[in-house]
Amino acid sequence: MRMYDLIQKKKLGEPLREGEISYLVEGFTAGEIPDYQMAAFLMAVCLRGMTLEETAALTMAMAHSGEMVDLSPLPGVKVDKHSTGGVGDKTTLIVAPMVAACGGVVAKMSGRGLGHTGGTVDKLESIPGTRTSLSREEFFQVVRTAGLAVVGQSGNLAPADKKIYALRDVTATVDSIPLIASSILSKKIAAGADAILLDVKTGSGAFMKTLDGSLELSREMVQIGEQVGRRTVALVTQMDIPLGQAVGNALEVMEAVETLRGKGPRDLTQVCVRLAAEMLALAGKGTVEECAAMAGASLADGTALERFQGMVKAQGGDPSALEDWSLLPKAAVCRELVARQDGYLCHMDTEKVGIASVVLGAGRETKDSPIDPGAGIWLLKKTGDQVRAGEPIARLYGGDDRRLDEGEALYREALQIGTEPPVLPPLVMARVSRKGIERF
Amino acid sequence: MRMYDLIQKKKLGEPLREGEISYLVEGFTAGEIPDYQMAAFLMAVCLRGMTLEETAALTMAMAHSGEMVDLSPLPGVKVDKHSTGGVGDKTTLIVAPMVAACGGVVAKMSGRGLGHTGGTVDKLESIPGTRTSLSREEFFQVVRTAGLAVVGQSGNLAPADKKIYALRDVTATVDSIPLIASSILSKKIAAGADAILLDVKTGSGAFMKTLDGSLELSREMVQIGEQVGRRTVALVTQMDIPLGQAVGNALEVMEAVETLRGKGPRDLTQVCVRLAAEMLALAGKGTVEECAAMAGASLADGTALERFQGMVKAQGGDPSALEDWSLLPKAAVCRELVARQDGYLCHMDTEKVGIASVVLGAGRETKDSPIDPGAGIWLLKKTGDQVRAGEPIARLYGGDDRRLDEGEALYREALQIGTEPPVLPPLVMARVSRKGIERF
Repeated sequence: MRMYDLIQKKKLGEPLREGEISYLVEGFTAGEIPDYQMAAFLMAVCLRGMTLEETAALTMAMAHSGEMVDLSPLPGVKVDKHSTGGVGDKTTLIVAPMVAACGGVVAKMSGRGLGHTGGTVDKLESIPGTRTSLSREEFFQVVRTAGLAVVGQSGNLAPADKKIYALRDVTATVDSIPLIASSILSKKIAAGADAILLDVKTGSGAFMKTLDGSLELSREMVQIGEQVGRRTVALVTQMDIPLGQAVGNALEVMEAVETLRGKGPRDLTQVCVRLAAEMLALAGKGTVEECAAMAGASLADGTALERFQGMVKAQGGDPSALEDWSLLPKAAVCRELVARQDGYLCHMDTEKVGIASVVLGAGRETKDSPIDPGAGIWLLKKTGDQVRAGEPIARLYGGDDRRLDEGEALYREALQIGTEPPVLPPLVMARVSRKGIERF
Repeated sequence: MRMYDLIQKKKLGEPLREGEISYLVEGFTAGEIPDYQMAAFLMAVCLRGMTLEETAALTMAMAHSGEMVDLSPLPGVKVDKHSTGGVGDKTTLIVAPMVAACGGVVAKMSGRGLGHTGGTVDKLESIPGTRTSLSREEFFQVVRTAGLAVVGQSGNLAPADKKIYALRDVTATVDSIPLIASSILSKKIAAGADAILLDVKTGSGAFMKTLDGSLELSREMVQIGEQVGRRTVALVTQMDIPLGQAVGNALEVMEAVETLRGKGPRDLTQVCVRLAAEMLALAGKGTVEECAAMAGASLADGTALERFQGMVKAQGGDPSALEDWSLLPKAAVCRELVARQDGYLCHMDTEKVGIASVVLGAGRETKDSPIDPGAGIWLLKKTGDQVRAGEPIARLYGGDDRRLDEGEALYREALQIGTEPPVLPPLVMARVSRKGIERF
């Protein structure tokens, strides 16, 4: 087998066989196939596509390129959740304890912030002492004692995906549905998921800006997940507006705790209940409706918050920081922005809001730059809200005034004030399962 | 400007501006743009194409990436000829002296053998003493004294094309019309051509196997040549059958000399007269018909042969080798193949005939392997000929019996013997100029 012939085949639009896909994934991971051949192949995939069978084979080949986590020693159906990334998306911090509180087992690996979107691991690490890099034994121990654990991805999880992603990132070959779908699913499968819930964000703050694109990605991922024997459901959720009010690591931890106390923003609470319900249903705990009722109750009765506190403690963190915000990292400076005109906040360029938070210090400007855990934005007005000139619209948190200036300029650019209130999209726009697409 | 954005633009099928194309050609040649980005870009070009303006910009950027030969100190219109490569294609050895004999000036750079096709430089070097690597001063001196010179390409001619071609060769991005056209023309323009005659071979022995593909390539090259201010004509000539009877370096020199004496095979002579006539017409020496008459006369009156002898002498070669074949390199062993059945030779897989000659030693199996100048094939029967069992069909020349065995097996595989004589295609199938396409 020669990589040249596989590139040529894909260039002509012909499907590759499973053995050919394993050959190229293994060869590239081992460094035997050079970057330039893989780059040509990836561009051919972008422009010619891949069949469902090819994408499933790519997914499994990437999953098997490194360690395959075996979660079978843990009881029950292990359901994993993946979000395609959004602004203010702290749902894992809330949903994982809700699921654990309702009898599910959550042994989850999460990522760090990427581009304009935050990452669960960075958020957790803003709680003093919390460790996200655990040995496999420690990880299992935390799940057994606390009922859940959320840790960082091990270095050897789907190394082929890591290497291919790094190449896609510099060759303009990121936005291909089969490549996105296989990248996401390969990591979930390597991480040991029995069933997978996908939270496909859509709108100005999401990777997928359009509903059609999100539905296509959802359908593809559900089909592939099912093809490789994992029950898979996708929710297409709204990311045209940041989720909740907090954007930034420690700020989002505060908001997550408030939500676990039943006092969170309505949009965030609603999305979390739905995500938890879907995960519980995938774990066989009942219908989605029954599970939603259980999930809601876990917020009301405090059991979800207890689970979160237990997990933080088991991962070495200080649970008192979840009661006393002064124990959480704080940004050096803060600035309150006020509206400059009357009207309705009719659109937020949510990606730009995310970039503003990165500029403030909440995300990484380059891959290895440090983050400021206290930095970020607290939104006081969101799309749909009425504003009056002089009224506070947001609080910015950052390391110094230069960052606040830059962040403010970007944040203001992201907002559109109009005279009419906008029509708000539903929070959950569609549900995609093996049975098809339901739109809401 | 970022290479990433240019890849993305081409992936979306948008045309690049001239400045963007220079940026990427210069950046890649300087080693600032990595192979993997260029590979992704080249695949996007294969699948999305390039406009005429983009291809012209690419051609000029590659031409200007190294030395630009200035032929203006030499008198008259300098016409260059390029063949896309064939089996038994020794036309340059014959056409260049014909043109010089008729008052044209030929200061030509040629290539070495590539894959299954031979190269003029290898052929010339089989004449003892002949040098093809001359300084610029020596090159001009030979043209002035002999009226023509044929040398190898200087190392710094269109280095961007060399580097891009090497990458295309390993990333399955060779067969793109804009990339082929710009590669060919950039070298001709860097070599100082005022006008260009393209010999686009078509059929089983050519790079382009179909007439449609050859016409498309011809039209594109003529348009680009004209766009960059070079009068350009393309002849689509037949390469479904090897040209002449000789395949291999010294064997082709003998056949070229015989043809210059007016005793060459009919097909080779006819193609050479037509090529010479087109070059002379491009040099302003008359109509194609008038020039064809002059070219034919140069064979009959011996002036073309004199020019060839003069050039060989001026380039350090032994002109007596052109009279006495025993002074040319000879292969160690020879084998005559005879037909195994009666019938008509109804098809030759001409690429396979070329590969057989490479296996015998006439070409390079890897880029740096030596060639055996005496090796090759002398065809005694060609497509259309009647054969009888036991009758000689070819003589193979090679270094040892193992090579002869391998060459014979391949050669026999290349032949199809049938019961009916085939319909032969015309030798010159079409002529493409700025006025359009004429088919014959």
